[in-house]
Amino acid sequence: MAAEEAVRTFLQNKLDKKVVFITSGGTRVPLEKNAVRFIDNFSMGTRGAASAEFFLSHGYAVVFFHREESLQPFARNYSHLFYSLQIKDDQVVCDLPHLKEDVANYHKYKDNLLFVTFTTLQQYLHLLENISHLLESRGTEAMLYLAAAVSDFYVQHEKMPTHKIQSNEGNLNLTLSIVPKKLDSIVNEICPKAFVVSFKLETDESILIDKARGALVKYGHQLVIANLLETRKAKVVLVERDSTELVQMSQDELDSGKYIEEKIVARLVEIHDNFIKMNRK
Amino acid sequence: MAAEEAVRTFLQNKLDKKVVFITSGGTRVPLEKNAVRFIDNFSMGTRGAASAEFFLSHGYAVVFFHREESLQPFARNYSHLFYSLQIKDDQVVCDLPHLKEDVANYHKYKDNLLFVTFTTLQQYLHLLENISHLLESRGTEAMLYLAAAVSDFYVQHEKMPTHKIQSNEGNLNLTLSIVPKKLDSIVNEICPKAFVVSFKLETDESILIDKARGALVKYGHQLVIANLLETRKAKVVLVERDSTELVQMSQDELDSGKYIEEKIVARLVEIHDNFIKMNRK
Repeated sequence: MAAEEAVRTFLQNKLDKKVVFITSGGTRVPLEKNAVRFIDNFSMGTRGAASAEFFLSHGYAVVFFHREESLQPFARNYSHLFYSLQIKDDQVVCDLPHLKEDVANYHKYKDNLLFVTFTTLQQYLHLLENISHLLESRGTEAMLYLAAAVSDFYVQHEKMPTHKIQSNEGNLNLTLSIVPKKLDSIVNEICPKAFVVSFKLETDESILIDKARGALVKYGHQLVIANLLETRKAKVVLVERDSTELVQMSQDELDSGKYIEEKIVARLVEIHDNFIKMNRK
Repeated sequence: MAAEEAVRTFLQNKLDKKVVFITSGGTRVPLEKNAVRFIDNFSMGTRGAASAEFFLSHGYAVVFFHREESLQPFARNYSHLFYSLQIKDDQVVCDLPHLKEDVANYHKYKDNLLFVTFTTLQQYLHLLENISHLLESRGTEAMLYLAAAVSDFYVQHEKMPTHKIQSNEGNLNLTLSIVPKKLDSIVNEICPKAFVVSFKLETDESILIDKARGALVKYGHQLVIANLLETRKAKVVLVERDSTELVQMSQDELDSGKYIEEKIVARLVEIHDNFIKMNRK
């Protein structure tokens, strides 16, 4: 219960702030009991890590629930940092551009940022449920921002071989089962007052908005961020029950190193504030 | 051809040194043409990254062919480095224990170290073959140290769906084909004079040594490093045609932060030197 305890304490210390619970990175699904092979979802976690920074700058407390080794707030642009280190005057120093600003921002906001990690699908599902329970006490002031790329399929434990699948046995046939969706119970049972944002990533534009709206109707939450794999850094659609809103970046904005998450988060903060007001007696 | 050109130039500049070509990290196998999902092999690349450091300290030139985002030499213990950075006297500094020594070692050896990256199985196979061709001119002075965790299975392109597999269509059945083994053509056609080391990782001890020796007989290369997933950091077996040799760490050695790769590499350097002498006229 170490992770849950850390979240409980964090939330108790942040009663003066709105809270966002961000999930980020992909889940890993073992194919064998002694796991050597996995099915993994593609996600560096850029969306989640960048969004966390902007929620912090808007004054939120952030529970950053991320896949081990996926990108993290402020650190995300420095994955090869070690090789830029120098020794000067017997001290390890680094003079990469922008680094000092990002280090300063991390130290400014770190008390409002809690890291919780997962690797496998099972860990993700388990902690997602337990942390959502803890958020319930924050009512409408809690936002769930479910940006993790969760596997839709998994291998049932009883169908899993114990040892490494041998490759001299011809083709490999795998039967994967559908992962049960937690969103329904989170929205309708576990923390029904929270503001819940889910993501829909597709590669086929023709079905994207329909699938996003379908999720809203099915689960009854507040907002789906719909995006295509190819254009996800330049364009997303915020899909609500009765409206859609395009958020996009100009080429100039992208060239100058700005992130679409800045605009997404700014709009979500407004919509969340409205949601809090509307749900007051 | 950028990677091949870089390797060619590097090898031309390192004619005075023995060369080791290290493969490291796991390969990614796409399940869809517009790839969102993959099968990934488990490997942080610790073995390859640590081994590279010890080969460098033994005077080798190292071509470090690794999975993007897997661990890298010297940097491998500092994956969360960013959060240890401090600002002192308007400068970004870091005072983690051992860091200065590792940074100094990196700068000492970096001219003998070339990074080449892959992500997918296809990139891996393509560059493995091309770089092996380039190593041929180095004869017995080249070692291939094939530590990457290469997928045994892949989805044939014509069987792959174009768009993201939809999860509302019931169970997912995948048919995976066996990846053709490159080792045969590398050993017997592409660089037949080189000293070739492959790895055999299993979870079932009872079949490990037989499988390692089977690979030697089948491909005709020099040495297989056999290891079990559970104990791979404490114990390996060097399997040659006519002998096996246990390399292991005491608990004291492990507790003091030593790595088994130091011992593995020291032995391989001796065996490689012998191999070079034996193959001289």
